[in-house]
Amino acid sequence: MSTPIDRPSAADPEHDESDAADTPHAEAAEPAGPGDAEASLDPQDWAQFRALCHEMLDAALDHVRGVRERPVWVPVPEEAKRGLTEPLPLEPQGAAAVCDDFRRYVLPYGTGNLHPRFFGWVHGSGTPGGMLAELLAGAVNANLGGRDHAPIYVERQVIDWMRTLFGFPEEASGLLVSGTSMATLIGLTVARNGAAATDLRHHGLGAEPAPLVAYCSSEVHESAAKAMEILGLGRDALRRVPVDGNFAMDVARLAEAVAADREAGMRPFCVIATAGTVNTAAFDDLSAIADLCAEQELWLHVDGAFGALAILSETRRHLVAGIERADSLAFDFHKWLHVPYDAGCVLVRDAELHRRSFSSRQDYLAAAPRGLAGGNPWFCEYGPELSRGFRALKVWFTLKEQGLRRLGRKVEDNCRQAAYLAERVSDHPQLELLAPLSLNIVCFRFTRPGMSADELDRINGEIVVELQERGIAAPSTTRIGGALAIRVNLTNHRSRRSDLDLLCDAVLEIGEELAPA
Amino acid sequence: MSTPIDRPSAADPEHDESDAADTPHAEAAEPAGPGDAEASLDPQDWAQFRALCHEMLDAALDHVRGVRERPVWVPVPEEAKRGLTEPLPLEPQGAAAVCDDFRRYVLPYGTGNLHPRFFGWVHGSGTPGGMLAELLAGAVNANLGGRDHAPIYVERQVIDWMRTLFGFPEEASGLLVSGTSMATLIGLTVARNGAAATDLRHHGLGAEPAPLVAYCSSEVHESAAKAMEILGLGRDALRRVPVDGNFAMDVARLAEAVAADREAGMRPFCVIATAGTVNTAAFDDLSAIADLCAEQELWLHVDGAFGALAILSETRRHLVAGIERADSLAFDFHKWLHVPYDAGCVLVRDAELHRRSFSSRQDYLAAAPRGLAGGNPWFCEYGPELSRGFRALKVWFTLKEQGLRRLGRKVEDNCRQAAYLAERVSDHPQLELLAPLSLNIVCFRFTRPGMSADELDRINGEIVVELQERGIAAPSTTRIGGALAIRVNLTNHRSRRSDLDLLCDAVLEIGEELAPA
Repeated sequence: MSTPIDRPSAADPEHDESDAADTPHAEAAEPAGPGDAEASLDPQDWAQFRALCHEMLDAALDHVRGVRERPVWVPVPEEAKRGLTEPLPLEPQGAAAVCDDFRRYVLPYGTGNLHPRFFGWVHGSGTPGGMLAELLAGAVNANLGGRDHAPIYVERQVIDWMRTLFGFPEEASGLLVSGTSMATLIGLTVARNGAAATDLRHHGLGAEPAPLVAYCSSEVHESAAKAMEILGLGRDALRRVPVDGNFAMDVARLAEAVAADREAGMRPFCVIATAGTVNTAAFDDLSAIADLCAEQELWLHVDGAFGALAILSETRRHLVAGIERADSLAFDFHKWLHVPYDAGCVLVRDAELHRRSFSSRQDYLAAAPRGLAGGNPWFCEYGPELSRGFRALKVWFTLKEQGLRRLGRKVEDNCRQAAYLAERVSDHPQLELLAPLSLNIVCFRFTRPGMSADELDRINGEIVVELQERGIAAPSTTRIGGALAIRVNLTNHRSRRSDLDLLCDAVLEIGEELAPA
Repeated sequence: MSTPIDRPSAADPEHDESDAADTPHAEAAEPAGPGDAEASLDPQDWAQFRALCHEMLDAALDHVRGVRERPVWVPVPEEAKRGLTEPLPLEPQGAAAVCDDFRRYVLPYGTGNLHPRFFGWVHGSGTPGGMLAELLAGAVNANLGGRDHAPIYVERQVIDWMRTLFGFPEEASGLLVSGTSMATLIGLTVARNGAAATDLRHHGLGAEPAPLVAYCSSEVHESAAKAMEILGLGRDALRRVPVDGNFAMDVARLAEAVAADREAGMRPFCVIATAGTVNTAAFDDLSAIADLCAEQELWLHVDGAFGALAILSETRRHLVAGIERADSLAFDFHKWLHVPYDAGCVLVRDAELHRRSFSSRQDYLAAAPRGLAGGNPWFCEYGPELSRGFRALKVWFTLKEQGLRRLGRKVEDNCRQAAYLAERVSDHPQLELLAPLSLNIVCFRFTRPGMSADELDRINGEIVVELQERGIAAPSTTRIGGALAIRVNLTNHRSRRSDLDLLCDAVLEIGEELAPA
């Protein structure tokens, strides 16, 4: 069998380190003497490596600190793309050369979400403390699938805090995951398995006597439909209930849909309520939906990706009233809590059902009352992943470093800023608000009397691209009632009102350029 | 609605930083002046924060460098457990205090997988370069769900390398994930959706005319069964084909099982072959299985969590012959390539089918030919996750820093070390090899003439716990043919033969202690 490893290295004069590469495998690589570390992959020259790390740490800190002075985003230049398409790296390039490549090709060309004028999609902006935590997690290099070690207790601590914050009972379970998409997949797995008439883990959906159906609003995040697909239920089994004028689920229509499905021989099992839709940050009425779920014996899953964190804001907290009644709750730390990507969480009220939906320990994962194999239960019993990195550390670090009240003040700030922007938009004849403001997302557009709907869509799409390409600001787009909207999301602790002034001015200026009056 | 945020802080004299905490939210928190950064979550005193980061970096490097001088593992002490159960952190504790807690409660009590005598389960041991990469990823704080930025090109580069390494066609697709469990879930989703008679994403499994069934060996990793459960197929639809004396799937029996299921009206759709079982590192005959899959039109998914990396070893490469014929391949970077946790990969031969199984872009994720919303296709179209951290960086960094040939020599080293240990075990009358050696896992036990099977199990279980609790070495346990085995896995670039000598001596010594002759 021939592999690329056998072939002669592609000539790469930039990275010629043939000294290390051509040493034949000999006893020298399997040393017995103490202190002889050449055989490992650790640095051969620790002092040199340490100096490099300190240099890169400074570069990283400077990068974050200086973000306001740079453009929000610059297109990835061809040179960087070329630099990131090299042949399979057969020979060692050494850490210093890799750091050079990182500084040339990667660091300058991020998404821009660290920048105070990044308003696209729903991104958190990270903190230097979170970055430090990532370094420390790298030093620990833990697998949190299970076993008995301190990182496990860190994750338990974080879950316990979240249970407390969201008013879940003490015996509820939870798991840190990459984000709300995974959290929803887990929540719905538990809901599905709990509702099944047969032993679904063994027999699959084929043995179910009636089709399982779930409900959400028409504004639901796509991850809910993807979860239904993966679970074998199919997206058609996710009924999209119409929304009211505030883009919240019409609960009367929900009740009708459930009744109609029962009538038709289906088996309703779950309602997915949204706390903060991605289009407009609309909130479903969680209390009313929880009442219906209780009455109809349906699982209540709440997608609170960013909106759940409204709980931290004194003035917006009422929007999530009822969240403590969810059977499962999915939300993110990397959005409005500014933990570095990726970090989300699922909480499940019924811990035993949660564990029963995922636990299956084989011989090689047997538990022990003592030793490393202790620490029961293991986190791998609560989700699909057996290998799980130490993302709990950056969450723990951020929550402790900042404190939830300060994090809540930033949530509050963002909401006030959104209100300020909505006011500016409403006040200007060339700008039009496209959706009511409920939290932190403002959807608006540039207008010009006499322009067709198509022209307006085209112009506003171009304005957004120009804002991005000129490095001024980075909103994203969406469609509200069919119309293309400039979508400004504020989950950014570095944003100030002056940044929103600058955005408005630039939208107007670019609008004038593209469509002179 | 009352929340824990509203209540007075729990008195916590250790963390009293009431100055920052009690500042009422006022205009000062929403400043307009340039250079005024108090309102953000960034450090108020950058110089102080920078000094702290450098101090922690040194601590992290010292931790890794000094690992050989420490015990492999120590039980988490009560004091640390207490330190990791504090009330909800309402007020800011500041980065320095959090770092103190980290050094006291977390850093000393890891799993031990950095240590040269960690032989448990299948853990990689990480590298300082990987740790540095985690710091840098934290500075970039990218979401690789999509959009157009350099981190996307880094992940594409890594996938392209893996495609090349494993002989997949240029047009194959791939995705970085947390590990093989997720990679297998994705591979099987594509296999299931591709085999379905109906539009499974829409209609779910309920519309399928015949039950879909898959095949694996009785030694399969549990993640395959968990994937079947999540996908709604059920674990009973995963047929466990018996193994031969080397713990490899009996391909003749596989053919019989497929024929019998077809006869019974089932719909065989997939074979899950294992390249390196977790019990004994056994390899299924991938070429023979690929032939059968081609003939029977079955999807071939290969679980190569660590074993796929045998491709890097000149002397063991033949074990994965045929891997290039897989329809999907799942493997880990955090095991035998020593990338910090977590990092795995799935490759899929049919990129279009892969994308069709997961892609669904809504208005708020619309693509654009230019600007930040460019960069098509987006990675979120190839898996369940929309938020995806920059794990690609640590993989890219490690592969470039070390080079695949050096990484391959460490794979080779580990195999030789396993052979050395197996020889020592075979040579000693008090030690018994429990499974044939194929790669890097040695299953053996301490024996004593006249001991019952139960006594042997008990003694060997205790030996493992004692080895761990005394900090000498950390093997794990499994069962081979019903007997409890001391399981030594070598995916550790810091291990030396002398570490295995030390392990053998300690097993014998503790065995004598527990069961004096």
